[in-house]
Amino acid sequence: MNKFKSIEFKDNILYLIDQRKLPTTYEIFECRDYRDVDFAIKDMVVRGAPAIGVTAAYGAVLAADEFKEEEKPIFFEKLHNALDILNRSRPTAVNLMWAIDRMRKAVERSKDLETVDICEMLLREANSIYDEDIRSNKAMARYGNSVIEQGDNILTHCNTGALATVAYGTALGVIREAHYTRKNIFVYVDETRPRLQGSKLTAWELVQEEIPTKLIADNVAATLIRDGKIDIILVGADRIASNGDTANKIGTFMLSVVAKVYGVPFYIVAPTTTIDFEIKTGDDIQIEERSYKEITHIGGIRIAPEGIDVYNPAFDITPNENITGIITEKGIIRPPFREEIGRLK
Amino acid sequence: MNKFKSIEFKDNILYLIDQRKLPTTYEIFECRDYRDVDFAIKDMVVRGAPAIGVTAAYGAVLAADEFKEEEKPIFFEKLHNALDILNRSRPTAVNLMWAIDRMRKAVERSKDLETVDICEMLLREANSIYDEDIRSNKAMARYGNSVIEQGDNILTHCNTGALATVAYGTALGVIREAHYTRKNIFVYVDETRPRLQGSKLTAWELVQEEIPTKLIADNVAATLIRDGKIDIILVGADRIASNGDTANKIGTFMLSVVAKVYGVPFYIVAPTTTIDFEIKTGDDIQIEERSYKEITHIGGIRIAPEGIDVYNPAFDITPNENITGIITEKGIIRPPFREEIGRLK
Repeated sequence: MNKFKSIEFKDNILYLIDQRKLPTTYEIFECRDYRDVDFAIKDMVVRGAPAIGVTAAYGAVLAADEFKEEEKPIFFEKLHNALDILNRSRPTAVNLMWAIDRMRKAVERSKDLETVDICEMLLREANSIYDEDIRSNKAMARYGNSVIEQGDNILTHCNTGALATVAYGTALGVIREAHYTRKNIFVYVDETRPRLQGSKLTAWELVQEEIPTKLIADNVAATLIRDGKIDIILVGADRIASNGDTANKIGTFMLSVVAKVYGVPFYIVAPTTTIDFEIKTGDDIQIEERSYKEITHIGGIRIAPEGIDVYNPAFDITPNENITGIITEKGIIRPPFREEIGRLK
Repeated sequence: MNKFKSIEFKDNILYLIDQRKLPTTYEIFECRDYRDVDFAIKDMVVRGAPAIGVTAAYGAVLAADEFKEEEKPIFFEKLHNALDILNRSRPTAVNLMWAIDRMRKAVERSKDLETVDICEMLLREANSIYDEDIRSNKAMARYGNSVIEQGDNILTHCNTGALATVAYGTALGVIREAHYTRKNIFVYVDETRPRLQGSKLTAWELVQEEIPTKLIADNVAATLIRDGKIDIILVGADRIASNGDTANKIGTFMLSVVAKVYGVPFYIVAPTTTIDFEIKTGDDIQIEERSYKEITHIGGIRIAPEGIDVYNPAFDITPNENITGIITEKGIIRPPFREEIGRLK
């Protein structure tokens, strides 16, 4: 398995890089049925909005295969039940719902076929989603690279790399492309508490790629921005409302506020599948709250006292007025966002 | 030893709450000579600008006692050498230099006495610094409480409590006072990466005091501020320039930017000993960089990949224009800061 492919499907087994074990251990997690897939998404063996979508699609393939010997009504009932479960595995990433929806449509289109042929159709659909993800990342990387200047210092947050997608990445895909095209970039990545995706995943990808990088605490970014040490900020997205308001990893909003005050360009890099045309503004995006243990413990070690309450939202909303542009596989969306996003519908 | 006194000196032993072990283990660290004191400051057994000052003062007492049998010229030479070492134990907190300076003046005043009497004078001086710290905290707490409204939600950063001082605290002293005077306050404390003083120390003090609190990742504060869930922000200071620019724990500046954008009052709580009248602006304040290991490891566990570079400044500078007021033991300093601070000189 290529180190830079987080997901691979072969002979009815879904192989995922186990992102819970990085950066110290590189291990493959095998999903043999849709329950394994549900667990892998919930427990964040795999994370990153595009990667979750692709993973769930293969979860549907595994479910169909599991039930293919059933009578067709039972087959459909069990398959849709599995799709419902996968759809609920994480609440914020719209790519998950989008991928499940595509799989449901593929079921609908092939509903008159034999179950074994429906399975075949679903596998083809999942493979399409997989291939499109790679193509879409490469397209984003090229569009994004057009806003990177020679010698830029780039700040990024969380992990938006090969690990968050099938390969290449969204914001980190742009960084890869800038590096491959010899722009002499320098990357600051913040650790991204509480789950430390910056330290554990992005730093790991950047070290593998030998891209010059410094890892910082989230608290350091504001000073770097004020001191002119950041030329551009690139982050991903978990869901984009139709006015451009963007849900992304907690801490993104803070960066956007400081960037705006100090005039640093702030770009979202995300495929158009991340856009939720159904919702008008960020106010309508549900924000997942995760376990208090992400704050009170690190690696099983208690770092906060017994009896302390915790508030642990996984995402925040960056309002469109803080966003310079949204880099997609179809080009860069710039303000006014509502109109420009409306055209993509 | 009272749980809420971080420092106690008795029979030529300096007892410190070992803040490296909290919140899981409550342990006392004993300093029997000035080298132990130097270690305790460097290794952050004790931290917090006022606490460091008091600790260093007792370090001077221990040094004088160690050398009291020497001939006077040797006594002075060794004592001043010890004072130099203590003075360099941490670079940013001005209280350290201030306390060492007071001890040097006490040596100078008593230079014609017998060494044993000089020791006595130094002990008295250290005890004065100790007592003044407690009195000063109580005064700050009362002044600070005047800006707290009934039912306020207060955000604080790092640890500025009994553990950062001798007792009570600076910003956390104000929070204690508001709680004791039944203002029904609610506290949000951020974990304060990288050293987690918020999680480990402030959360521990707040749990002990049974003050309603939620612990958050540093990345969450900006969203709470925007959503109107924070009425006031109270933080401490490690050094204040004569124009009001304030060095404090990394992350303070970021909070001040977001507070200013969303109109939330942002107060520094610090004794006037934290003011460095010698420096004009924050640009002249030296910022300590600490070990990369604070970012790559937590509790001995590696959380970032081998080979990653780190930038780990311990403090940042909040410019005076982001500060609503500086709460001191002499009252609340408000803009224009340069003029108001000048009057205290």
